[in-house]
Amino acid sequence: MQLSPSLTTLIEALRCQPGIGPKSAQRIAFHLLERDRKGGTQLGNALIKAMTAIGHCQSCRTFAEQPQCEICLSPKRQDSGILCVVESPTDLLAIEQTGQYKGLYFVLMGHLSPIDGIGPSEIGLDILESKLQQGGINEVILATNPTVEGETTAHYIAQLCYRYKVDASRIAHGIPVGGELDLLDGMTLMHAFSGRRVVSQN
Amino acid sequence: MQLSPSLTTLIEALRCQPGIGPKSAQRIAFHLLERDRKGGTQLGNALIKAMTAIGHCQSCRTFAEQPQCEICLSPKRQDSGILCVVESPTDLLAIEQTGQYKGLYFVLMGHLSPIDGIGPSEIGLDILESKLQQGGINEVILATNPTVEGETTAHYIAQLCYRYKVDASRIAHGIPVGGELDLLDGMTLMHAFSGRRVVSQN
Ligand SMILES: [Zn+2]
Ligand SMILES: [Zn+2]
Repeated sequence: MQLSPSLTTLIEALRCQPGIGPKSAQRIAFHLLERDRKGGTQLGNALIKAMTAIGHCQSCRTFAEQPQCEICLSPKRQDSGILCVVESPTDLLAIEQTGQYKGLYFVLMGHLSPIDGIGPSEIGLDILESKLQQGGINEVILATNPTVEGETTAHYIAQLCYRYKVDASRIAHGIPVGGELDLLDGMTLMHAFSGRRVVSQN
Repeated sequence: MQLSPSLTTLIEALRCQPGIGPKSAQRIAFHLLERDRKGGTQLGNALIKAMTAIGHCQSCRTFAEQPQCEICLSPKRQDSGILCVVESPTDLLAIEQTGQYKGLYFVLMGHLSPIDGIGPSEIGLDILESKLQQGGINEVILATNPTVEGETTAHYIAQLCYRYKVDASRIAHGIPVGGELDLLDGMTLMHAFSGRRVVSQN
């Protein structure tokens, strides 16, 4: 017996979600059809809305539905003079959830990876460079992941900072090498922030 | 910082899926936005389509996009004179995947549960009764789950079969008590079928 076309399509489509294999996808599809069609339809609408309405903040590149995100629009954040560079919006979120950092962000949406054709402009470093050039930023905190690519990216940005006479520091304490920043608990992240070391100072 | 409204709605909506908690929902939402917007939109459309297009077969009550499902429309299946009663479409699917059973099905979409207000007509037993009355069915295989409710439901249907002089058998071997039918491997399921015992014979 073949499943009906819409059901086959749904089970296949559910697998775009990380961690959802064929068996989980089938169970989810049947669960929604049997017990929660309203929830299934709401999820459908929420997905379509989110995929079209959510773009990127013109200033920091994180996800935003307006031209600029809430953080970039905050005068208090703008006055901080501190810019934290992260690889992804989930990293930004993890740092925000500590409730301690009050500066601005710059979200690379990736890291330098020449082998994959990802150079400085693919991760917005041209935008970051013009920010450094404009002035108003006194310190850049490099919070890229402690992986080879993350370190390479941090090193590249540190050189940019040196060129524009902006202090750059690298978060250090407590991040397990090869680990993922957005999986850390808040305490470890705060230690990483307070234990940052200067990598370029003017 | 608050997440943007469409993103908050999406993360909440993703949780209608069994096994997806707040942390998984957030990771899925960010994954789709960062790396697979096309997949996210396709999933949205597949959900909306499936929740509206998929109804129930008028004859066996399983999921179908046409008035009758593929199995009920098969003359070979109709000629078998065997009807297997299961609780859910996933149970039907598990039995079909063994490739050995060639009869018809009747899908209860639940089981008797007086405490929850689920009586015979809520699980389609009026439709099943008229099938037995019409004739053409020589044996009913009771493949409800081996739980208290599943056994009670099987017992109730066995009595219906007795009334209409139709043999009824209960699948038996190999099903762990309290287990879920659709989680069993095909071999165990086949043993359960071949080891079925008569519970009502005329
Ligand atoms: Zn922003
Ligand atoms: Zn059918």
